[in-house]
Amino acid sequence: MLQPIGDRVIIEVKAQAEKNIGGIVLAENAKQKPTEGKIVAVGTGRILDNGEKIAPVVKEGDVVMFDKYAGTKIEYDEKSYLVMHENDLLAIIK
Amino acid sequence: MLQPIGDRVIIEVKAQAEKNIGGIVLAENAKQKPTEGKIVAVGTGRILDNGEKIAPVVKEGDVVMFDKYAGTKIEYDEKSYLVMHENDLLAIIK
Amino acid sequence: MLQPIGDRVIIEVKAQAEKNIGGIVLAENAKQKPTEGKIVAVGTGRILDNGEKIAPVVKEGDVVMFDKYAGTKIEYDEKSYLVMHENDLLAIIK
Amino acid sequence: MLQPIGDRVIIEVKAQAEKNIGGIVLAENAKQKPTEGKIVAVGTGRILDNGEKIAPVVKEGDVVMFDKYAGTKIEYDEKSYLVMHENDLLAIIK
Amino acid sequence: MLQPIGDRVIIEVKAQAEKNIGGIVLAENAKQKPTEGKIVAVGTGRILDNGEKIAPVVKEGDVVMFDKYAGTKIEYDEKSYLVMHENDLLAIIK
Amino acid sequence: MLQPIGDRVIIEVKAQAEKNIGGIVLAENAKQKPTEGKIVAVGTGRILDNGEKIAPVVKEGDVVMFDKYAGTKIEYDEKSYLVMHENDLLAIIK
Amino acid sequence: MLQPIGDRVIIEVKAQAEKNIGGIVLAENAKQKPTEGKIVAVGTGRILDNGEKIAPVVKEGDVVMFDKYAGTKIEYDEKSYLVMHENDLLAIIK
Repeated sequence: MLQPIGDRVIIEVKAQAEKNIGGIVLAENAKQKPTEGKIVAVGTGRILDNGEKIAPVVKEGDVVMFDKYAGTKIEYDEKSYLVMHENDLLAIIK
Repeated sequence: MLQPIGDRVIIEVKAQAEKNIGGIVLAENAKQKPTEGKIVAVGTGRILDNGEKIAPVVKEGDVVMFDKYAGTKIEYDEKSYLVMHENDLLAIIK
Repeated sequence: MLQPIGDRVIIEVKAQAEKNIGGIVLAENAKQKPTEGKIVAVGTGRILDNGEKIAPVVKEGDVVMFDKYAGTKIEYDEKSYLVMHENDLLAIIK
Repeated sequence: MLQPIGDRVIIEVKAQAEKNIGGIVLAENAKQKPTEGKIVAVGTGRILDNGEKIAPVVKEGDVVMFDKYAGTKIEYDEKSYLVMHENDLLAIIK
Repeated sequence: MLQPIGDRVIIEVKAQAEKNIGGIVLAENAKQKPTEGKIVAVGTGRILDNGEKIAPVVKEGDVVMFDKYAGTKIEYDEKSYLVMHENDLLAIIK
Repeated sequence: MLQPIGDRVIIEVKAQAEKNIGGIVLAENAKQKPTEGKIVAVGTGRILDNGEKIAPVVKEGDVVMFDKYAGTKIEYDEKSYLVMHENDLLAIIK
Repeated sequence: MLQPIGDRVIIEVKAQAEKNIGGIVLAENAKQKPTEGKIVAVGTGRILDNGEKIAPVVKEGDVVMFDKYAGTKIEYDEKSYLVMHENDLLAIIK
């Protein structure tokens, strides 16, 4: 199990449907980077300068959107995840 | 439904009237980027360093202006939106 | 009507007298950018890190000077304005 | 009259004595930029993050030194001035 | 023994299994940089702007993930370690 | 007399002994920049974000070391000085 | 004697054993920069934004590790030292 540090979240990215344009299946590096995923783990939250801890607003299972350049890709248990600060998330899809 | 994170807002951009210059319809990338739109969702607001939460000043339905380079474009339910921090908005059109 | 967000002001820039040098009227992009204008709208002010709101020091009608690179140009009701943070203003002309 | 905004000061720069090197009078852009001048107007001062206002330490009439790249040049009433933050001043000449 | 300063941790990186692609053993600089390791020492923690000390959340023995560009490599007692700020850690593997 | 602004100090730099390498006296721009000097004036000190004023720790007459790129060179009364923030000083020589 | 300013420390760097590779003694600029040394002087400590002074955690005689690019090299009494902020130290060797 992965426990994110501080105000980070771990995201299982949504697989992009492969695009087949005019019979040509696009190669890996031509595919669009994912911008949507499911939260699988949430850190303990951000600590303000006055020592107060701010609880995260997202929770496990939330489906979220993020910028395609946000976060760091990690490999764990033969699967890929993105780790990013909660504040790099754009929106929750409800 | 999209729920923006923190002090972000989601904007439905106003379609730009297509310009037809001397009979030539300008291609997508020659059109001006939108700078006006309608707020469709508002986050819970910014948290100050002392823990205080500042309520957003804009609300759903407000028509706003923003810099053409502000925000991140997202696709949801086959429509395009812009997500940006409330403080990147320039003005409300009343 | 335009209501600036936060500590922003909206400025109607002073038209620059066209310069006619040796009979040649300078083209748009050769003219000097404006550095003077009249405040037409004022935001609600800046919020300090302790939550205190600082009222703006300029008011509608004030004639102000600013750096030629300050602010964002907007179009509203077929007129051009500049939107900038109050703190990007240099001085009030009294 | 010019009233500087916030912690800014307005400076009348000291004319540089023209240098005549070997009979060649240096052209404008070869002259050294001024680094000395007289304060002609002082803003109301800087506002700290706790809302406290810090009164300026310089006053009208003070002769000051500054870095040759400090400040913004403005034209007012057919004269040139420099506007800069008080904290960009290096020293008062007493 | 190494005692990290402030909010730093010292990590013994996990050896990467050498990859043998088509019979060619990859040279040192072609191998992937490590992104996983074991905490071997923890600093006393971060000091907030109000003087409060925040105890580290990781402890000796924790297995952690980090970005491949995080930290500074040091040599001690003929072994290599990474030193980084606790906040540069991404997640604890539990 | 020069009165530095805020947390600045004014330094009379120590003349560098001219180096004569193999009979060649090095030209001005090949000499090492000074890194040592004597404090000749001290500002009133730094103001913290809570309004508290921090008295300078150096005083007139202190001999100090600084980085060769620190500070701004000024000319006053036909002599050269360096003005820098107290915190750009490295050490006092006692 | 050298008294470092603020939260700085002065370090006597550990001489690097000269490496002799295949009979070729490496020239000065090919040698590795030092990353280990002994603290010879400690400043009075860092001042927090609330005016509180944080005592240094290292003391004279401590052997420390640092990044090879950290600090400023100074010459004093015909010996070389490094001056750096205490927070640029990585670890104390105990």
